[in-house]
Amino acid sequence: MERIGFIGLGIMGKPMAQNLVKAGYQLVVHDINRGAVEEVAAGGAAAAASSKEVAAQSDVVITMLPDSPDVEAVVFGPEGVAQGVRSGMLFVDMSTIAPATARKVYEALKQEGLESLDAPVSGGEVGAKEATLSIMVGGTEAAFQRAMPLFQVMGKNIVLTGGPGAGQVTKACNQIIVGLTIQAVAEALTLAKKAGVDPAKVRSALLGGFAQSRILELHGQRMIDHNFKPGFKIKLHRKDLAIALQTGREFAVPLMTTSQVAEMMNALIAAGNEELDHSALALVVEQLSGEK
Amino acid sequence: MERIGFIGLGIMGKPMAQNLVKAGYQLVVHDINRGAVEEVAAGGAAAAASSKEVAAQSDVVITMLPDSPDVEAVVFGPEGVAQGVRSGMLFVDMSTIAPATARKVYEALKQEGLESLDAPVSGGEVGAKEATLSIMVGGTEAAFQRAMPLFQVMGKNIVLTGGPGAGQVTKACNQIIVGLTIQAVAEALTLAKKAGVDPAKVRSALLGGFAQSRILELHGQRMIDHNFKPGFKIKLHRKDLAIALQTGREFAVPLMTTSQVAEMMNALIAAGNEELDHSALALVVEQLSGEK
Repeated sequence: MERIGFIGLGIMGKPMAQNLVKAGYQLVVHDINRGAVEEVAAGGAAAAASSKEVAAQSDVVITMLPDSPDVEAVVFGPEGVAQGVRSGMLFVDMSTIAPATARKVYEALKQEGLESLDAPVSGGEVGAKEATLSIMVGGTEAAFQRAMPLFQVMGKNIVLTGGPGAGQVTKACNQIIVGLTIQAVAEALTLAKKAGVDPAKVRSALLGGFAQSRILELHGQRMIDHNFKPGFKIKLHRKDLAIALQTGREFAVPLMTTSQVAEMMNALIAAGNEELDHSALALVVEQLSGEK
Repeated sequence: MERIGFIGLGIMGKPMAQNLVKAGYQLVVHDINRGAVEEVAAGGAAAAASSKEVAAQSDVVITMLPDSPDVEAVVFGPEGVAQGVRSGMLFVDMSTIAPATARKVYEALKQEGLESLDAPVSGGEVGAKEATLSIMVGGTEAAFQRAMPLFQVMGKNIVLTGGPGAGQVTKACNQIIVGLTIQAVAEALTLAKKAGVDPAKVRSALLGGFAQSRILELHGQRMIDHNFKPGFKIKLHRKDLAIALQTGREFAVPLMTTSQVAEMMNALIAAGNEELDHSALALVVEQLSGEK
């Protein structure tokens, strides 16, 4: 059984690491948050003082970090993963970062004789805890097959969509569709409400037809209940759309509507709501409609 | 069994009327297109020379027309339905029109002792032929129950969402969500393609997660195949979004993203593509991305 290093024990990373421990893997973990490290260590994982030390004790290193600069720091920094690697190791970054950064990491580690995968996830904290995450993977088929037993401990819908960076591109596509569909449902249900039609009945009616989506089902209900407890925080979705827009610029794809929804998220954050669930985009539409 | 009048035998109305004939109803039909009238008459319906004449021979009058002015003309015009009505009749407009027009028709016919329902549909030509339409209804519960046996001959997902006009508001909500979700899928899959990731693999990966929708499933596939044969023509969807935006103004709901997608549809139409399926919104994104 491969020895697993896990770096980044936040809301997502902690339950993912814990699921690997429960599945019987030997884990060595690291995070700047000592409390999270101790919690995972209490379940049977070893703690390491740096990313370099994690890498030195592992066959596969998994990272789950907030953003591109964090991944670059953890990989290339002074006590980083790249300092502790040996040829034949596998590096799997499950953070949501820019595809360009994922490709940069891939190329750099390849020089050291390592294979890398970018493998961002979707499904949130609940998916991480229940091991039902969707995992979108970019890299070689061989590396994908090697990581598969680990992915199966953390998720359910696991797809290799292409070479290095393809997982991150797929995740950007996911966040575009999720963000725009939330905005769509927000505009529709706000219109219904202000036109005197029960949004709950509209949601039910539309779920049976062509407007059906998981967003209408779940976030439509959140909007009806005005339940914006996260879930997936709007500030994280804005970060993800920034990645999508950056990737659009890189490949010359003007993402007109994505950029508008990103600005809607900015409006929500400007109003002090950055910690709310992304379904709170409905609050922007309501505010524009004169509601307090 | 109630005698049914059916006015408007276009792409949608003709198969709907034919399904009523097949179900054993006695139908009298009218359309400005003689060919369509003869076709439905050949199946056993009677033909009438005007909307007034249809009304004079029916207990329930159903209309299925292109837009608000058509419904107003058929109801209030010189040889219109209102000229042939008797108290106790039921009027059911299944066209997609402005909620404000639906309420106006309701009020005017109420003065004549009639009940009316606005009952627009979703599901397209295939849904009309296969009697699987979604039917979104506004009006009184009693009128809804009276029309239900007829609706069940034409559709499957039949919901009363509120009083007069509520069916049209629900349809506007449906068209908002469908239009914006198509734009979302178009931006996402174009980004994937230009970033060198197979859009078919992205579609498959995302269908298992939070970005799932019927639009991603069906129109995502259309975009991958570049199959833009209608389906639902972009010019009709633009008309429906115009209704949504008009309703937004009426009830003070700024529909920022809906208006942008309506302009994307204008761009598609400006390029001479008004007869294509609405999934051809992908062509606008591709064109903006420098593709020919």
